[in-house]
Amino acid sequence: MPKASILDLLKTKQLDAILLSSPSQIIYLTSYLGFSPVERDAFLLITDKKSYLFTNSLIVDELKNRVKGIIVIEHNRSKSFAKNIAEVIKKEKIEKLGFESNNLTVAEYLALTENISSRFVSIDISRLRSIKDDLEIANIKKACIISQKAFIQTQKLIKPGVTEQEIANIFQINVLKLGAALSFPTIVAFEQNSAIPHHLPDNTKMKKNGIILMDFGIRYNNFCSDITRTFFIGEQTKEQKEVYKVVLNSQQEAVRFIEKNLKDNQQILAAEVDKIAREYIISKGYPSIPHSLGHGIGIEVHEAPTLAPNSQDEIKGGMIFSIEPGIYLPNKFGVRIEDLYTIQDKKLVILSDSLI
Amino acid sequence: MPKASILDLLKTKQLDAILLSSPSQIIYLTSYLGFSPVERDAFLLITDKKSYLFTNSLIVDELKNRVKGIIVIEHNRSKSFAKNIAEVIKKEKIEKLGFESNNLTVAEYLALTENISSRFVSIDISRLRSIKDDLEIANIKKACIISQKAFIQTQKLIKPGVTEQEIANIFQINVLKLGAALSFPTIVAFEQNSAIPHHLPDNTKMKKNGIILMDFGIRYNNFCSDITRTFFIGEQTKEQKEVYKVVLNSQQEAVRFIEKNLKDNQQILAAEVDKIAREYIISKGYPSIPHSLGHGIGIEVHEAPTLAPNSQDEIKGGMIFSIEPGIYLPNKFGVRIEDLYTIQDKKLVILSDSLI
Repeated sequence: MPKASILDLLKTKQLDAILLSSPSQIIYLTSYLGFSPVERDAFLLITDKKSYLFTNSLIVDELKNRVKGIIVIEHNRSKSFAKNIAEVIKKEKIEKLGFESNNLTVAEYLALTENISSRFVSIDISRLRSIKDDLEIANIKKACIISQKAFIQTQKLIKPGVTEQEIANIFQINVLKLGAALSFPTIVAFEQNSAIPHHLPDNTKMKKNGIILMDFGIRYNNFCSDITRTFFIGEQTKEQKEVYKVVLNSQQEAVRFIEKNLKDNQQILAAEVDKIAREYIISKGYPSIPHSLGHGIGIEVHEAPTLAPNSQDEIKGGMIFSIEPGIYLPNKFGVRIEDLYTIQDKKLVILSDSLI
Repeated sequence: MPKASILDLLKTKQLDAILLSSPSQIIYLTSYLGFSPVERDAFLLITDKKSYLFTNSLIVDELKNRVKGIIVIEHNRSKSFAKNIAEVIKKEKIEKLGFESNNLTVAEYLALTENISSRFVSIDISRLRSIKDDLEIANIKKACIISQKAFIQTQKLIKPGVTEQEIANIFQINVLKLGAALSFPTIVAFEQNSAIPHHLPDNTKMKKNGIILMDFGIRYNNFCSDITRTFFIGEQTKEQKEVYKVVLNSQQEAVRFIEKNLKDNQQILAAEVDKIAREYIISKGYPSIPHSLGHGIGIEVHEAPTLAPNSQDEIKGGMIFSIEPGIYLPNKFGVRIEDLYTIQDKKLVILSDSLI
């Protein structure tokens, strides 16, 4: 701490310091898991030599105990965050200050600029975490294993009469019993609800036959998994079989495209991968995927890179990302298949071994 | 929808429309529970006659099905949110536009002001939800009941050798089995960990005797509970008994102060309530409470009013708030007692009947 990627950014942008406000970046750089994802528990200021963590009195002792190599500064009623940071900015002679414009609120920005004379420079650090190290990859792999275990346990309990909400609940209990937590609310969609990409589980009951879409993820050691499975109870219709096959092939087209480019030592553009899978589905006469083909994953469920038509990202070794094509036929049914992959030693490796 | 309080705000601030971005406000006004608390799933634009919900293609159909009385507009790759809202702003002739400066990010603000010629006016709507209606109160009461049930089930399992993390996990499983979800990560702190107000449960093991602090809350029909209990296994020391008594008395001092003022038809300032409890603790020779005495609760665990020394809030009928004094003795132990209260028919009513 600070990680090399932050130091690079300081140098290339010629910044004296970077002020981080987003919980995911602060969790990444401190390895402390207790920050709220919705409340502002801390700000992290990083220069090329020192790091300062500004936090409130509720967790200050916890942070002093657990976070090493960072100066922890407490704000409270007698000394505000604005005052504390102004002092450090002055002491460290910070003239050019990078900040997360896609996280800092307008009110926070106004309060800071009122107290600090540094020049504020908007920086985009959404790609900071896109290349994972071995430990990060191991944690996400483990998250995939746990979520698949919980999924198999849950899947057995799907029978006529059970509701989507009950299945979502059972999945979560299974995850907790395995010592992990959810990384996002589980999607369980029966029948025509599966045609809505992000359907909220409700009291819809399972019938005798039917299609089930489950999109689930867990958090292990603070790293996320994200997997989607579509499966059937009873007889499948001919159309369902056909659609499932097209979605699976679409995913495999993307996989083969990446593998071929790795073998040929070619640059792999995320937009190109998206295009291969998307056009395969369209070529079979189905509607285009109404979402991105895939996304990076790590401390957040969605992070860089983005596999989408307008993406500027390049797929590189050490990235972990989903490939998740889908076909959604409104008022009928939908199929999505989502797996996580990484690139290690110039090879594409699946982290969520396809179970279905 | 829109609720009367938003219409009042439009009028008093002479706004043509208000743009809401915070998930909690959008959940409040749409009653749709599926919005992510961390990602930007939607924006809500409210004029005195119409409401527009701008959202992405993943949940647009879900929202069209579930949210009534609101015009749902989809943004996607071919038409951006910026473009969609610019059209509506033009059509509705919106000149003066209120926005949540404590939620909208700098990047979002810049993108919007680039596309929209309206004058942006910062509004603070943090108090919008502070007075609860009967249904909201009933939901929070139910949330209190469920969380206390889960707490009692969990408490029975605390015995020598069990870890804080295991107890936190068991509590969550019990909550899920009761058909609810957590509203925040449960705090379980054994012994000297209880001296840290927001301790993160870890592998600390329960000993034969000891103090246990549990701060727990659940979400039911989207409304939160938040309760803290401090209790003992085995013998208490004389100091522990004394500290517990002082904290409980401090809470009761605040309760009596509110009750007296209600009876006398006096205005009740939140800062005054805080002062009563805080000074009682100090008068007994213990350190001041390192946090606010209390906070409002609703869709969010922390919302208006704030019971703190610098609070400008007034305690009024229909508000729901915590009273949670605490004494923390570093490297020894801490005690916090937190209950939720509301004011109905000029009477203070406890929602989380004290079990311990």
